[in-house]
Amino acid sequence: MVKPTQKPKSTHTEGEFELIGRFADVLGTDLPPEIVVGIGDDCAVARRGDDFDVYTTDTMVDGVHFRRGQIPWFDLGWKSVAVNLSDIAAMGARPLHCLVTVGVPGHVASDDLAEVYRGMAAVTAEHGGTVVGGDVVRASELFITVSAIGTLSGASGGGGGDGGKDSLPLLLRSGARPGDVVAVTGDVGSAAGGLKALGERLAGGREALVDRLHRPTPRVAAGKALVAAGVRCAIDISDGLVSDLGHICDASAVSAVVRLPDIPVSPLLKEIYPDEWVELSLSGGEDYELLFVASAELIEGLRDAVDVPVTVIGRISESTDAPDVSFLSEDGRPVHIDAGGWDHLKQ
Amino acid sequence: MVKPTQKPKSTHTEGEFELIGRFADVLGTDLPPEIVVGIGDDCAVARRGDDFDVYTTDTMVDGVHFRRGQIPWFDLGWKSVAVNLSDIAAMGARPLHCLVTVGVPGHVASDDLAEVYRGMAAVTAEHGGTVVGGDVVRASELFITVSAIGTLSGASGGGGGDGGKDSLPLLLRSGARPGDVVAVTGDVGSAAGGLKALGERLAGGREALVDRLHRPTPRVAAGKALVAAGVRCAIDISDGLVSDLGHICDASAVSAVVRLPDIPVSPLLKEIYPDEWVELSLSGGEDYELLFVASAELIEGLRDAVDVPVTVIGRISESTDAPDVSFLSEDGRPVHIDAGGWDHLKQ
Repeated sequence: MVKPTQKPKSTHTEGEFELIGRFADVLGTDLPPEIVVGIGDDCAVARRGDDFDVYTTDTMVDGVHFRRGQIPWFDLGWKSVAVNLSDIAAMGARPLHCLVTVGVPGHVASDDLAEVYRGMAAVTAEHGGTVVGGDVVRASELFITVSAIGTLSGASGGGGGDGGKDSLPLLLRSGARPGDVVAVTGDVGSAAGGLKALGERLAGGREALVDRLHRPTPRVAAGKALVAAGVRCAIDISDGLVSDLGHICDASAVSAVVRLPDIPVSPLLKEIYPDEWVELSLSGGEDYELLFVASAELIEGLRDAVDVPVTVIGRISESTDAPDVSFLSEDGRPVHIDAGGWDHLKQ
Repeated sequence: MVKPTQKPKSTHTEGEFELIGRFADVLGTDLPPEIVVGIGDDCAVARRGDDFDVYTTDTMVDGVHFRRGQIPWFDLGWKSVAVNLSDIAAMGARPLHCLVTVGVPGHVASDDLAEVYRGMAAVTAEHGGTVVGGDVVRASELFITVSAIGTLSGASGGGGGDGGKDSLPLLLRSGARPGDVVAVTGDVGSAAGGLKALGERLAGGREALVDRLHRPTPRVAAGKALVAAGVRCAIDISDGLVSDLGHICDASAVSAVVRLPDIPVSPLLKEIYPDEWVELSLSGGEDYELLFVASAELIEGLRDAVDVPVTVIGRISESTDAPDVSFLSEDGRPVHIDAGGWDHLKQ
């Protein structure tokens, strides 16, 4: 979905973000009253009676978001839908339906496209969001655009009703408060490890990292469990931990401190990339884990309800100047992370 | 939306339709029970409590569906959304929201894209379906994918409830019955005249035809009025009158006879293209008028409720062999129309 405030990296270039800004300027005004969240979160949100419907769309273009020949056709279908289901998960909603458009160059075989659709059917069978229609168009480059709708009950986990965005029973980027802690599902960096491994000989466990890149698990069940437990702030990690935590800080007007040794990273990633795993886990992106914020007590209490490990990695504080993400080492000292290109770290 | 049974012309090539068939094979099975219409109509339809939600998506690719430089940027935005609203109109539903994805080559200026978004905002302001989100991605060719959701009340115009598709209060391709008459809103052929005029000097009224091509009116109000009056069968004219009537005949397992002199054609089109207007009106496409079928009495009674002229052009009959569209001249004699490429006419 459109995220006009974020700094681009993996999925968008600078020029694209300028255009998204224009897009938001032209279209983002005068939204009808049922739109409770417009452009700027993982999904747009529309009130439907007592429920909330969430909408998202994401596109994968050959040569930009994937390379034909590197990603199996089945995985391409899986991922193109999974990244949309992940946006729905990041709102705490349940996927309902998807529409799928494929732009097809003449040289793509029909059998290969059928594999793409099989991958789509597989991810929706497992995580919801049946494909109910779509389109196939002639194009000079391969692209897949998926749009998805999800829903959640207005009664989920209390709250919801008195009009303020903060009282909505949704996971929003704007829900972080000073004193809350920052947590993440699963582990981070493996997808970025997979991207790195694509350029190398696929041995020694690299295949498993590539699978993390090509067949991400949308955290739909976890997102629903978070909302039910009372969590109100989350984002899915598509651009990278630092960047996506920055989006939460920007939207919530807060800062965050992350303890580097607490970030969950798979032993396999550490083994294969002993010198790079820290950077991969901080700014790699495409893990599609959920990064979320709530009180420490609430998070301790929800572990059993979530189907994936939850790790607390940091804390939210007041912003003294601008929203900011900073890092502490094992002994509690500030660490400068050189992740060039990330404004949050450039100061 | 995906129309796996139709023969391609303006919007799809043969190869694309083969792929759509595969798509439907892989994805079209095991739809959940709330999907009352899947792939194969103007929109997919999902039951939502007492209401029905309709989904559609359409894409315009530079060099395939339009040519950059020929269509004004504003009109490109208008049309990309209008064709989706037209699909919603062809179900009799009310547009709710749209998501918009634009694939942008580096050489497209931000100001031009802003014009595209202004065109989108203009058509939704007039006909409904607010753009609530979307995406901008880098691509080597310009494309716009719009997905739209609409809704209609399960109580609209009676019917709806006992489970059969025919009892749904929707405009479906499958709702034509022998003895019904065929009618059309507005006039047909002008958009095709506009396409022809693009290659000529824009004078003598040709600009007005080009406007019909570039800024079609989605017949949203008319579609809602048809459903409210009890009509249950319609399609929007995107591929051309003959082709789209053929889709109704195929889906309804009936045949149709059209009286050529009754087809509504604008005086301007006849004046500019005195030798071609018959062919343009039959197979031109992109008019986005509604072609609908109901009893003669019902259609006579609804004229005042519809905000655009309605013209009866033919009649539905039993199919003796396969579904078939045929034509009669002014004096009631069968006419052979040579519209090469249309299977319905090749016999």
